[in-house]
Amino acid sequence: MATTRDYTAEDCSLARSLEIVGERWTLLIVRDAFYGVQRFADFAAHLRIPRAILSERLSLLVRSGVLTKSPGPGRRELYRLTDKGIELFPVLRTLVAWGDKHYAPRGPRRHFRHADDNGEVNLAGVCQDCGKSLAVRDYLVTTGPGAAPLDTDADVVTRALAHPHRLLDPITG
Amino acid sequence: MATTRDYTAEDCSLARSLEIVGERWTLLIVRDAFYGVQRFADFAAHLRIPRAILSERLSLLVRSGVLTKSPGPGRRELYRLTDKGIELFPVLRTLVAWGDKHYAPRGPRRHFRHADDNGEVNLAGVCQDCGKSLAVRDYLVTTGPGAAPLDTDADVVTRALAHPHRLLDPITG
Repeated sequence: MATTRDYTAEDCSLARSLEIVGERWTLLIVRDAFYGVQRFADFAAHLRIPRAILSERLSLLVRSGVLTKSPGPGRRELYRLTDKGIELFPVLRTLVAWGDKHYAPRGPRRHFRHADDNGEVNLAGVCQDCGKSLAVRDYLVTTGPGAAPLDTDADVVTRALAHPHRLLDPITG
Repeated sequence: MATTRDYTAEDCSLARSLEIVGERWTLLIVRDAFYGVQRFADFAAHLRIPRAILSERLSLLVRSGVLTKSPGPGRRELYRLTDKGIELFPVLRTLVAWGDKHYAPRGPRRHFRHADDNGEVNLAGVCQDCGKSLAVRDYLVTTGPGAAPLDTDADVVTRALAHPHRLLDPITG
């Protein structure tokens, strides 16, 4: 019976990538990191992920060089995307687009726009208004028609994303 | 503790997409389907995936409308990508590119080229030679420097992919 390691040995870079990000929680954590989530408690509250799983997935992402972990204010650790992690953006963006097409009956929950001119950004990362090819930090995430109304007890991440928010800008609560 | 279903209820299209394709084997099966693998035995031999897992993942992909299952010659079932499944190509392509950059020390195992002119194709699906925006059927998959030498006992899929092969063209062995 093949194991993950057997497959890795074949030098298939897709299989090796999927060892790191080919799992539901992992990609949702990476998505939240693009939104600017940096603290363990904020990932946990936003994703409602069991803490043991979150801890294990964050460690894997740090070991794999997708996230860094560094001390922040109040001795809380902060998790941030590395350059290698930021390069996952096209994967996330294309998967969100596929989901928006097939699983968003009320329309997308979030839109990706160019922060400078509010232009729509195509899947290749080009602003449809100004024609500029965007870096991830040039994106604004805004709410779309599929966004649920904000609950009074919404977590800090959900509250931050109820307003236009620049990708990678820290959500600090 | 949140379950998958709880998260789904939030209408997050990424989470819903990941329920279907956010798992290592599932995306490798989808990749093989792009290569033209259609038969259960060929997926099993190429991926060396336990048959029970393969059976379960194929059923999920059929239920989700990513693959169709239909009778083929000799009463063997054939699995083929639907239009919805074919729309996953940008996800696969961007993830392969990320893996090629970070996990392919000898270079990519496979290249994606335009079948008409052998031009390189960028991540947005545009041929760098002729400028045409390609459909998936316009791609040729060819071996790259990271491809392992062909074993004498290689499976039918590995043998077929040792030569340039048009995406979605059935691999029949």
